[in-house]
Amino acid sequence: MTLKHLVDARQLDPTIVTELCHRAEFYRGQGPLNELQGKKLGTWFHQRSTRTRWSFESAMLRLGGSVISEPNAEANSSTGKGESLEDSIHMIDDYVDCIVMRHPQWGSAEIAAAESDVPVINAGDGANQHPTQALVDAYTMLLEFGHIGTLHVAIVGDLANGRAPRSLCYLLSQYKVKLTLVSPPDWRMKDDVKEFMRSHHPQVEETTEFKDVVREADVIYMLRNQQEYKTEEGRSDEVPYVIDTGTLSLAKKDARIMHPLPHCKEIQLPRDVEKNDRRIAYERQAKNAPYIRMALLAHLLK
Amino acid sequence: MTLKHLVDARQLDPTIVTELCHRAEFYRGQGPLNELQGKKLGTWFHQRSTRTRWSFESAMLRLGGSVISEPNAEANSSTGKGESLEDSIHMIDDYVDCIVMRHPQWGSAEIAAAESDVPVINAGDGANQHPTQALVDAYTMLLEFGHIGTLHVAIVGDLANGRAPRSLCYLLSQYKVKLTLVSPPDWRMKDDVKEFMRSHHPQVEETTEFKDVVREADVIYMLRNQQEYKTEEGRSDEVPYVIDTGTLSLAKKDARIMHPLPHCKEIQLPRDVEKNDRRIAYERQAKNAPYIRMALLAHLLK
Amino acid sequence: MTLKHLVDARQLDPTIVTELCHRAEFYRGQGPLNELQGKKLGTWFHQRSTRTRWSFESAMLRLGGSVISEPNAEANSSTGKGESLEDSIHMIDDYVDCIVMRHPQWGSAEIAAAESDVPVINAGDGANQHPTQALVDAYTMLLEFGHIGTLHVAIVGDLANGRAPRSLCYLLSQYKVKLTLVSPPDWRMKDDVKEFMRSHHPQVEETTEFKDVVREADVIYMLRNQQEYKTEEGRSDEVPYVIDTGTLSLAKKDARIMHPLPHCKEIQLPRDVEKNDRRIAYERQAKNAPYIRMALLAHLLK
Repeated sequence: MTLKHLVDARQLDPTIVTELCHRAEFYRGQGPLNELQGKKLGTWFHQRSTRTRWSFESAMLRLGGSVISEPNAEANSSTGKGESLEDSIHMIDDYVDCIVMRHPQWGSAEIAAAESDVPVINAGDGANQHPTQALVDAYTMLLEFGHIGTLHVAIVGDLANGRAPRSLCYLLSQYKVKLTLVSPPDWRMKDDVKEFMRSHHPQVEETTEFKDVVREADVIYMLRNQQEYKTEEGRSDEVPYVIDTGTLSLAKKDARIMHPLPHCKEIQLPRDVEKNDRRIAYERQAKNAPYIRMALLAHLLK
Repeated sequence: MTLKHLVDARQLDPTIVTELCHRAEFYRGQGPLNELQGKKLGTWFHQRSTRTRWSFESAMLRLGGSVISEPNAEANSSTGKGESLEDSIHMIDDYVDCIVMRHPQWGSAEIAAAESDVPVINAGDGANQHPTQALVDAYTMLLEFGHIGTLHVAIVGDLANGRAPRSLCYLLSQYKVKLTLVSPPDWRMKDDVKEFMRSHHPQVEETTEFKDVVREADVIYMLRNQQEYKTEEGRSDEVPYVIDTGTLSLAKKDARIMHPLPHCKEIQLPRDVEKNDRRIAYERQAKNAPYIRMALLAHLLK
Repeated sequence: MTLKHLVDARQLDPTIVTELCHRAEFYRGQGPLNELQGKKLGTWFHQRSTRTRWSFESAMLRLGGSVISEPNAEANSSTGKGESLEDSIHMIDDYVDCIVMRHPQWGSAEIAAAESDVPVINAGDGANQHPTQALVDAYTMLLEFGHIGTLHVAIVGDLANGRAPRSLCYLLSQYKVKLTLVSPPDWRMKDDVKEFMRSHHPQVEETTEFKDVVREADVIYMLRNQQEYKTEEGRSDEVPYVIDTGTLSLAKKDARIMHPLPHCKEIQLPRDVEKNDRRIAYERQAKNAPYIRMALLAHLLK
């Protein structure tokens, strides 16, 4: 099975995830390659992100390809001249062999993929999805545990306003995992994702209580808080769930703390704990990103 | 004959146009090349444009060269430190083998070319010229009709405020074409271009009436309206000339509708007509751009 | 001796300077190289600078490497998401083999180097240092005079607010030069640099008088005025020290006028004098920059 585009984590079934992860592990052991020599990747970012853009550009260069970059398409684009997303895609698919796009509009990547003559990778479409982050996450779970199928995964924080947890839930729904969604009432996962989960494999639980889940989960996936947290007394700068040395001490010995990074107040650990406690997986998770993105680029471009 | 720089469409005589188009057609059939390996193109854009910048960068990469990019030179430049255009060019011609520049100042490309040790390509200097767009246009006419010499070309819209129609008129003046300039009175082509046309080959007519011209022209070159249109009653959001299914039905069977893209209200055709009516040439026109720009880069850099 | 990072001009002792200059001279005679093929340089600029960024990117491309670019990291970074400099470095050192950074914070390059798994080059950290500019300067002195050791170098202008003169003083302190620091009282070199100079080789003099120094110095290193100059009557647009044809006529026959460029009101020479008087060295100085930066990149990456 081959993907033509990657716009939605529902495309990432276990077969394709496994294939991409195997390819990523192969690339990890290699020096510079020339597999994609002569191919051009266009990074078309309507929302700025050094992290995600450099991750893709690094992956493309490692495969011997080259890059055309637009770090700030919103300001540079012809939108002000009346150009639609469809028309923009018809233009840029003449110039590059693959498009990585980030765009503020929900569903924009799907529209782009429908119009594009070349593969489109969704690097974030509004608050909808970020499927390559889910791929990094699945790859990390496979490396840390050797399997995904029977893990107990807790996803913790703002599930309503982030695209990373939505994509992760879509991907994990295709495995027999146990999923615990931990959030304050206002930040619950939206119904569209919950319906997809219900019609697929996982056992899903929703809760507002963090402590019990910390004790039981294999993966504690912390999210960066993108919104101020509303308490009964008003808005709060505090985050509702925190991993600090106290909560970490409750976690299982072979648990893993994951995070899409950059982390903020939801991680409050001394640097030496971050470095030395094997359960802290998010730095390894970040280092996995270029390899799995290499695998995806090679998959789409060959 | 070889060009050292391309700053003005008056440099584009039929001999050079033909040579560049032949070279472009050769490149169209090729995979990635290494003809310009080790050469560096600098894209130095003081006005942002993803479209034009990517078109040149794609062309350079296809020839095996590499790119250094400045998408937003106005903000990044040393102008605020008191640096003149001349001094900037003395700096950047040390770093790259060819400079593509877009700049808001009329005549800036000519100043730059006079100072630069490496070839300078004008990708737009204020409201003055955009000669590589004219080259794309001529290349498209040659491909669509097999010749340019005896065509009847109508250029329609705002002729006073755009650099693309100025460069196109300069280029076409060197052929025996019939040129009809269609515009409201306030948007007439400026005298400097008209004088050049008068002293060269073409028959030129100016008119405000679109319909008759649509019936007779071989090429109907629609322009994007860059200014609000003033009617007697005041300013209007409407554009004075529109290609819709009605006007298209008047056009000759072998006519071609061209446009520099992105198009706006001056094109009002259903998507399936745009895709299926052979007379709609502007998407093929856009796809021609990287090949003719490859030809230009190879010409200047060898 | 090999450098792992270059963050501070105090690292640039005569041995390393000589080695880098020899390597730079070797590169000057070469065409495109593939010495750093497969290596990726990240240019991470929190303060915009086309000049410095392109200089490094050009150097990397000439060595066969490739580049990932962030011309405007401040706007694009995750700082707004609560990411520290340390965390940013942990991210980007996964994506590239060497980082060139410019950052508004004094000491930021040192922090970055302490955290980074890959070499970090300081291309300016606030008003602290700009060691590769000092390297360009030393290389130029070596080429112009054949040696640095016994030169009389005058550094003229705003010594308090610029990072280039600080780095140059640190570097030159390791030679037996005579240093004359010419500035108005408010713009004197800061004590930290003066202490380092005192504990090292050079004879150092401070003065407010320019004319005598012009007559005696071998190198007259003019600085761009970054601040308005305060006179007793208030602020002035004028600069306190100027090289014009009058002052140039006072300089020794084999003196050299240097400047980090772009120059401003402190240089007031006709263009033909700039081009034809051998003593004007700043254009040659600018042309030296890519070669010595090639040497530095090759040194750090092998």
